Amino acid sequence: MIGAGFGGLRASKYLADKDVDVVVIDRQNHHVFQPLLYQVATAVLSPGEIAQPIRRILHSYKNIEVVLGEAVDIDGTNKQVVLGDGVRVNFDYLILAAGARHSYFGHDDWETSAPGLKTLDDAVEIRRRVLLAFEMAERDAYLQDRKRQLNFIVVGGGPTGVELAGAIADIARQALAKDFKAIKTADARVVLFEGSDRILGTFAPELSDSARLQLEDIGVEVRLSSFVTEIEPGRVKVGEDWIDCDVVVWATGVAASSLGRKLGVETDKAGRVFVEPDLSIKPNKDIFVIGDMASIKQADGTPVPGVSPAAMQMGEQTAKNILAEIKGKARKPFEYNDKGTMATIGRSKAIAEVGKFKFRGFIAWLMWLFLHVFFLIGFKNRLAVMTDWFWAYLTRERSARLITGKAEHMQDAIEFMQAARARGTRSKSKTKV
Amino acid sequence: MIGAGFGGLRASKYLADKDVDVVVIDRQNHHVFQPLLYQVATAVLSPGEIAQPIRRILHSYKNIEVVLGEAVDIDGTNKQVVLGDGVRVNFDYLILAAGARHSYFGHDDWETSAPGLKTLDDAVEIRRRVLLAFEMAERDAYLQDRKRQLNFIVVGGGPTGVELAGAIADIARQALAKDFKAIKTADARVVLFEGSDRILGTFAPELSDSARLQLEDIGVEVRLSSFVTEIEPGRVKVGEDWIDCDVVVWATGVAASSLGRKLGVETDKAGRVFVEPDLSIKPNKDIFVIGDMASIKQADGTPVPGVSPAAMQMGEQTAKNILAEIKGKARKPFEYNDKGTMATIGRSKAIAEVGKFKFRGFIAWLMWLFLHVFFLIGFKNRLAVMTDWFWAYLTRERSARLITGKAEHMQDAIEFMQAARARGTRSKSKTKV
Repeated sequence: MIGAGFGGLRASKYLADKDVDVVVIDRQNHHVFQPLLYQVATAVLSPGEIAQPIRRILHSYKNIEVVLGEAVDIDGTNKQVVLGDGVRVNFDYLILAAGARHSYFGHDDWETSAPGLKTLDDAVEIRRRVLLAFEMAERDAYLQDRKRQLNFIVVGGGPTGVELAGAIADIARQALAKDFKAIKTADARVVLFEGSDRILGTFAPELSDSARLQLEDIGVEVRLSSFVTEIEPGRVKVGEDWIDCDVVVWATGVAASSLGRKLGVETDKAGRVFVEPDLSIKPNKDIFVIGDMASIKQADGTPVPGVSPAAMQMGEQTAKNILAEIKGKARKPFEYNDKGTMATIGRSKAIAEVGKFKFRGFIAWLMWLFLHVFFLIGFKNRLAVMTDWFWAYLTRERSARLITGKAEHMQDAIEFMQAARARGTRSKSKTKV
Repeated sequence: MIGAGFGGLRASKYLADKDVDVVVIDRQNHHVFQPLLYQVATAVLSPGEIAQPIRRILHSYKNIEVVLGEAVDIDGTNKQVVLGDGVRVNFDYLILAAGARHSYFGHDDWETSAPGLKTLDDAVEIRRRVLLAFEMAERDAYLQDRKRQLNFIVVGGGPTGVELAGAIADIARQALAKDFKAIKTADARVVLFEGSDRILGTFAPELSDSARLQLEDIGVEVRLSSFVTEIEPGRVKVGEDWIDCDVVVWATGVAASSLGRKLGVETDKAGRVFVEPDLSIKPNKDIFVIGDMASIKQADGTPVPGVSPAAMQMGEQTAKNILAEIKGKARKPFEYNDKGTMATIGRSKAIAEVGKFKFRGFIAWLMWLFLHVFFLIGFKNRLAVMTDWFWAYLTRERSARLITGKAEHMQDAIEFMQAARARGTRSKSKTKV
């Protein structure tokens, strides 16, 4: 098993206490509840609240061993996974569930200026940039009487982009407003760019419209049919126009783990592996590819979406197929069961689509809240997250507003963000300490 | 005001809503409750639980402005603080409270191998190393049938060293024991080296003895009169002997902020500024130096210790003196009021000394617990820490067991820690996934 995301973890749990030995390899020691990453990026939750050590999640199963390591190659002939340091791990069956990152469409150099949001480290880095932007604006306004517009740009109108844009606008208007004195944090501009003609394109068009209106209601500018064509430190080119900005977050494009390309099988442009109906690959039926790494179509011809329920269902089906085959039974093809999708926009704002039913606003937000607490792994995490949310809802405060990172990076960041620097002093009439 | 540690924060709060303008400059955006840093380093608490944004702590005071920035120089002639990017901040009075770090006695190159524990980033780095050491040992034992002794070394038997050594031993024996399958985490060796003939030298000798016994009781080896003379990646030289180790933590020596040396005043070897009885400096009576940066003697000739109560008392006295002088009154000299000290050793283990009274074991630990929750800043933090402690006490689990750090650093770390690497495979009889 490579990867302990939603798919890998579900497969592992299904294989728990069965007559197989399971080795779970992940390059992180923790499983992250990705749907809440944006809340870490916007200082609502702490990293520890949405993550659990993989070892802890699986510790009660005697037949499962967890190995921290990065798989760099698959040796199909010898049935071995090759780790970063050359160590090889044997397998009879391999489940590849290493997930995906954001794709910069060939512009990987944009990542420094416009980080994506896939890991806890990404989330902490985005939090650092967002909070630093406000700090720097306050500093310029107070020490140098220099007021300037704060601009936050989110690229991509999928769930992550929408959630991030909404949460940044929330922070600026609520949590930070009281703490800054020289600037009005609510004046910060949050712009969401989406290439297509509506946001949250996997939802029904009327829900996309509702989401856009809800976003605009909390002050986010939504720009549809807008392509970002260039990114430099401090500015973004949209179509032909350059737009200055303090923070850019990249929330579009999918690039499946590069491990998929090591299998000698055809992949789509995003690196997703074209899998057989049972999620195995043609040249080696003992290797399965699941979750965001797999490209497979539903009965109606539409692709299975890259969402966590799909990954979990794939994990479970694969585990079932392996156990069946060991017992001499036939594998069954994978069928995606769409139980509905939802996206949150901000405080009391969300949309949800379950079969023919569509929800928006407060009721959709409650559904989102309930499901996300319910699926969060670990009782203690659920308790902590609920406390934090309740606290934030009541007080509109954010508890995790830390800017971390080594001191020298901090200085770099300050210098980086102060593109235009002027030396000056100011004096006040009262005694200054 | 430079620095928002215990001293700076106390001074700021005392000056709040008074007829002065206060500018608080800190290179971090948060105040850290340093006495609990070791609990972040050992995965009991999350960074967010022991830190609060400075801006948030002081947000209700209209006359206080918080500036994120690193003070690099003091221009006494023009009465200005110079920030890292050249911006200058005027002052009528300056309170210098930038604290101290650990000193490597001229061997700053040791820091990479043996980090100290002064900031949240230090704590997260130590946590990463400790957890990674166990992960690597498990990996070697499982994938390569290579068992090896895990060695953790703590240098320095002051409160930080004792707390860290005790907490690492606790983790190995309790929290991690169930989660690792190929290694016995309880077999990990934790060695505490102290140069003098007893640990916690500022306490009464019988309490030092008690602390040593309590440490040994939870499995820590205490080596007194032992000097570390050399540190290399993976090993430490004590006296004439080299000792292999997986993690070294540096918890000895004090180096006051280098700002003290920019004042043109005499400093002691540790860079602490010799201050006047009112904590100001001779050449410029409008500059005060407080907390770990100041060197001052008590009435009985002993130095005021570098502890948080002393820093807070200095902060308050300085604020009082400034307000008095503005009103035309005279300054009063600083007098340290020793209310007692305590150090914790582990679960239900601690020592405390209050005047003539001495406490040890469970009762001292309860006192420690109560006081540390009480003085923690922020109601929500207190609640979260109490919940975590109660949880950890009941279940012996640790909630913050995350190894964070960019993926490439993770790989470096893995390679760094696998000093001896061998290639090999192993097979098992059961089906392997």
